[in-house]
Amino acid sequence: MAFEHKHLIDINEYSDTDIMTILETAKTLSEINQRKIKKVPTLKGLTVVNMFNEPSTRTRSSFELAEKRLSCDSLNFGGSSTSSVKGESLIDTVETLNAYKIDMIIVRDKHAGAPRIISEHTPASVVDAGDGKHQHPTQALLDLYTIWEHKHDFNGLKVGIVGDIGHSRVCGSLIPALKIMGAEVTVVGPATLMPACPEVLGADHVTPYLDDVLPEFDVVYMLRIQRERLEGAPFPSLREYHELFGLTKKREHLMRPDAIVCHPGPINRGVEFDSYMADHPERSVILEQVYAGICVRMAVLYLLLGGAE
Amino acid sequence: MAFEHKHLIDINEYSDTDIMTILETAKTLSEINQRKIKKVPTLKGLTVVNMFNEPSTRTRSSFELAEKRLSCDSLNFGGSSTSSVKGESLIDTVETLNAYKIDMIIVRDKHAGAPRIISEHTPASVVDAGDGKHQHPTQALLDLYTIWEHKHDFNGLKVGIVGDIGHSRVCGSLIPALKIMGAEVTVVGPATLMPACPEVLGADHVTPYLDDVLPEFDVVYMLRIQRERLEGAPFPSLREYHELFGLTKKREHLMRPDAIVCHPGPINRGVEFDSYMADHPERSVILEQVYAGICVRMAVLYLLLGGAE
Amino acid sequence: MAFEHKHLIDINEYSDTDIMTILETAKTLSEINQRKIKKVPTLKGLTVVNMFNEPSTRTRSSFELAEKRLSCDSLNFGGSSTSSVKGESLIDTVETLNAYKIDMIIVRDKHAGAPRIISEHTPASVVDAGDGKHQHPTQALLDLYTIWEHKHDFNGLKVGIVGDIGHSRVCGSLIPALKIMGAEVTVVGPATLMPACPEVLGADHVTPYLDDVLPEFDVVYMLRIQRERLEGAPFPSLREYHELFGLTKKREHLMRPDAIVCHPGPINRGVEFDSYMADHPERSVILEQVYAGICVRMAVLYLLLGGAE
Repeated sequence: MAFEHKHLIDINEYSDTDIMTILETAKTLSEINQRKIKKVPTLKGLTVVNMFNEPSTRTRSSFELAEKRLSCDSLNFGGSSTSSVKGESLIDTVETLNAYKIDMIIVRDKHAGAPRIISEHTPASVVDAGDGKHQHPTQALLDLYTIWEHKHDFNGLKVGIVGDIGHSRVCGSLIPALKIMGAEVTVVGPATLMPACPEVLGADHVTPYLDDVLPEFDVVYMLRIQRERLEGAPFPSLREYHELFGLTKKREHLMRPDAIVCHPGPINRGVEFDSYMADHPERSVILEQVYAGICVRMAVLYLLLGGAE
Repeated sequence: MAFEHKHLIDINEYSDTDIMTILETAKTLSEINQRKIKKVPTLKGLTVVNMFNEPSTRTRSSFELAEKRLSCDSLNFGGSSTSSVKGESLIDTVETLNAYKIDMIIVRDKHAGAPRIISEHTPASVVDAGDGKHQHPTQALLDLYTIWEHKHDFNGLKVGIVGDIGHSRVCGSLIPALKIMGAEVTVVGPATLMPACPEVLGADHVTPYLDDVLPEFDVVYMLRIQRERLEGAPFPSLREYHELFGLTKKREHLMRPDAIVCHPGPINRGVEFDSYMADHPERSVILEQVYAGICVRMAVLYLLLGGAE
Repeated sequence: MAFEHKHLIDINEYSDTDIMTILETAKTLSEINQRKIKKVPTLKGLTVVNMFNEPSTRTRSSFELAEKRLSCDSLNFGGSSTSSVKGESLIDTVETLNAYKIDMIIVRDKHAGAPRIISEHTPASVVDAGDGKHQHPTQALLDLYTIWEHKHDFNGLKVGIVGDIGHSRVCGSLIPALKIMGAEVTVVGPATLMPACPEVLGADHVTPYLDDVLPEFDVVYMLRIQRERLEGAPFPSLREYHELFGLTKKREHLMRPDAIVCHPGPINRGVEFDSYMADHPERSVILEQVYAGICVRMAVLYLLLGGAE
């Protein structure tokens, strides 16, 4: 049975069954990444364009490896080298890519909504690799994969997301994805880093008091703090942030014994965590998330490009 | 029978038979680009160096895809990352590439004549991917391919080239290529954008009055205007340019019913065209040119690298 | 019998037998580079990360071609595009790469010791591609390969290394490598370009007088002069350097008839050499060194990645 989606742009368009299909496919494909020969000819001769109009090392590398391990041909098209400097419109650029007879466009763009616009002008599949503060669906899927590996069931699972809620594209996909799967989501952060109307996030609870809610969480998801955003801000300073919202050894006694700790990377030691927590052998699953990124992106490529046929 | 050329540097060195061989090979290879698996092992294990000493998105992408679809190994060597910053001479750089045992060098350089100099110091094949205002032969070949698909015969075909004639590397290859194939070429543009001695172009006619000659053309080839060149210039302004030389709905009644419209891309909507003409379903073949670029470059790689053997 | 090393970081950890194994493997693999189809599937499905945190055209290109010709999957990760700009530590970056399930990291870094630190935090093989002024072991190996091709035996071979001894990462690996193989090494250069304690170099002799020692050398290895380092310096000026330390036609009568001339490239004509010497058909082996770079790097990848199994 073919996967019914063509694009991965908004996680809200995916059902719990769709998401489970991705996670289970990722699980099957993860076996490839553990072999000596980490490559299969599954998507050989298909062309995937990596259109990164904003710098990204980790997400781009993860997609590139997923493409290579499925034997796609990759074309890097974007960044400062794009013809966007020549004043061509986004749509004319997409029409050019269409004329190349490509199969998929992976889009990272600072403008929210760019992947959707692209999908309306191409016969290729489109995958959102992060657009503005809007969505980052493959990040949400790799997070779900990692949580699923540890908790096996999303139903009623209590997940806390802590940090710069207001500027996070991770939240934009992760909160709805967790809700689709049946989890209960609490967002935690200082009012200065919350959106004006936090209810639009779709979370079940919103609070600035980490210590009050930390004992309930099965999963504690720490968002990345951009140091620039706090430096010079009235409240909180980096030191205050770490004191009030950092996940530290001192705070561990508040956590459930089986609570795990996630982070989208790269981490700021001494801000979101102390090193005790970032490197905690049982709780920290941060590096498992990185590995899951390869597996989940392979699954997304495979399913959207009809590898199942 | 092997193709008798080793390099593609100056289109004037190619006969009408040579050019037809390329177009027919491109036609055959275009079948690959329409398959699901857009890849053949024809040039597997051959090394092609993309030496782009000047930024280029479209030409570079088009060559890269042609290389991948023929299974070459590509090495990107150039741009700001070259050792040219270390003061090494062009010839010493080429000698280094020779020692790598490479098979072809694709050269984009701001200096006219660079591909020729390189070809004199390498046993590899050299393809000019645009040198200064001099030549851009694969652009001319993809233009011919697109025209051939629509008009089937170049003999006596009336082609008008409109715009910034004086600064165009496209003209440097396209006009001689059209003449080799038996077409009749008229160049059209304001005196300020014409070379001092337009007769060196080799065109049959030169005029600043588009409306006088437009009714004759089977093919109208609009050159790209670099906005920087007109901004602040005494005449024409961008608005005046669009008024006098833009191909617009208003001007369509002057065109032959079967006249087609070409452009090397990326287009400036509102300057060379209005959107009516740029997107005209019967007349505009701009995206077919992009597609032809892949097919023609695959043909050039195949023929020059002896794929026919 | 498997090769006993996992990393190539410090040439001092390799025995003369290890080095001969690499040279002989490179000799065998050099056959691939002379075929029309310069590619074997030996390392297909293995992932090699090129982590170049400092610009490099030649070393990077040479590694990339070695990887392609052995059919590895390459990931370029580094330079200005790394997440190092996001303040992540080197070790956290390496942990991320580990989670990608990679097989080898090629490291170029301006900080001496970076490859060693990386090797302590990864299960992958690590190859030093130049770290600060410290080591550049694949450069030393390609130099040895080239010398071996001409001289067949290192025992008692007299090698002179001339130039900017104090700032050279080439010296850091080449001098110990030559000593391991039984050669006698003399370093020659102005006091201003010598380390404070030249004895740490491990060379047999140190002198500022080229003409006194030139007649003894079987191999004259000219180091690259960075023009910036001499410009504005009290002594020597570029002209003085060329006069006193340049290998020129005028100086040839002092050389052994069978003495060969090496240079790591890119060369500065008129500084380290005159063109007579740089291009000398019998003496100059500079381009053979470039070719040897591909063969030796293929051998290093093959041996460290267990291709021999």
